[in-house]
Amino acid sequence: MKAIVLLSGGLDSATVLALAKSQGRECLALSFTYGQRHEVELRAAARVANAQGVAEHVVYPLDLRLFGASALTADIDVPKDAVGAEGIPITYVPARNTIFLAIALGYAEARGATEIWLGVNAVDYSGYPDCRPDFIAAFQQVIITGTRSGSEHGEPRIVAPLIELTKGEIIRRGVELGVDYSLTHSCYDPVDAGHACGHCDSCILRRRGFEEAGVNDPTVYA
Amino acid sequence: MKAIVLLSGGLDSATVLALAKSQGRECLALSFTYGQRHEVELRAAARVANAQGVAEHVVYPLDLRLFGASALTADIDVPKDAVGAEGIPITYVPARNTIFLAIALGYAEARGATEIWLGVNAVDYSGYPDCRPDFIAAFQQVIITGTRSGSEHGEPRIVAPLIELTKGEIIRRGVELGVDYSLTHSCYDPVDAGHACGHCDSCILRRRGFEEAGVNDPTVYA
Repeated sequence: MKAIVLLSGGLDSATVLALAKSQGRECLALSFTYGQRHEVELRAAARVANAQGVAEHVVYPLDLRLFGASALTADIDVPKDAVGAEGIPITYVPARNTIFLAIALGYAEARGATEIWLGVNAVDYSGYPDCRPDFIAAFQQVIITGTRSGSEHGEPRIVAPLIELTKGEIIRRGVELGVDYSLTHSCYDPVDAGHACGHCDSCILRRRGFEEAGVNDPTVYA
Repeated sequence: MKAIVLLSGGLDSATVLALAKSQGRECLALSFTYGQRHEVELRAAARVANAQGVAEHVVYPLDLRLFGASALTADIDVPKDAVGAEGIPITYVPARNTIFLAIALGYAEARGATEIWLGVNAVDYSGYPDCRPDFIAAFQQVIITGTRSGSEHGEPRIVAPLIELTKGEIIRRGVELGVDYSLTHSCYDPVDAGHACGHCDSCILRRRGFEEAGVNDPTVYA
């Protein structure tokens, strides 16, 4: 069975890929260039795809900078030590997961893939609306009503296996499956290719996850 | 009030733009390059945007050829004289309107636009699942659950003013609003910049629409 796996190069999507493979899926990995501040993330995605083995890895160019308005795509500073602040953070990228899922959906239909796996998480997520179960359910309905494969077969099905797990549970599951987390990258604002900032939301959630899991954190912080 | 208007350069979207302007919207037009067989469509979109006046016109590059699998994006012949055939036609592009709406959504959020207007039509549509009211309703739910503006204000709202109109009714409405249909382009397989094929689904529906409306068809057919 063919599955599209959204692969950012982070800890979560590396775990999702391992889960999909452990369930016998033929995995087609999909990453996006979207005006990331650093190409570090895409290099991590390529490392993870290579290490785990995928049928193909498509890097899709998407110019979200056109739309500005996020610390991850525009010239706005990434907040530090701000996990737990109220509301939706400035690192929110307008409609990001909607756009990613829409492209993944076109890719799935063209390749005959019956599943789209992605690593959204609603527990340790830092306030993004497009990481919640009701968003995933709504997008599934878009697939069923708006596509050939959806209207004819109810597919592709969205699989979000991490959505109710804590970061620590995700890491423990990945370690069981042999995921090499030293290949992954989470930092929103890396100092250089080898050093994570250690203070953005993503670094803080990652650090806490390794602590919670009781697993050594391979990340090199600045 | 700012509105994003999806502008393909065809008859329907030109009418939608005129409707949005007639209701006092400040219109931001959005077109896509998506491996169209011909650039004719984009030139028509630019003409329509100019003639009607928009606050800006963004042409967003989107490489749907990566996904193949449609007569509009891959090297497959466009069917002729096939309107009314059973099922979803080969000109169906996987997830096209889902992808267009997803990008429009990011654009709307970044610009603070509270509406997204598009010219989908479920009467004379030629079998595309992503032109039906239940698809539009499902995508509205994606906006409400998955975006900052949707979860906070229930916006942007999708406006599909043509969805229940016949092609003839659309044309009559457009003529009342002063739309110059000679600027628009509908053909899936134009012979050259000035000549529509006259036999693809899109040409046939357009011809019938002008006949139904009792309006002179300005299109030059080969």
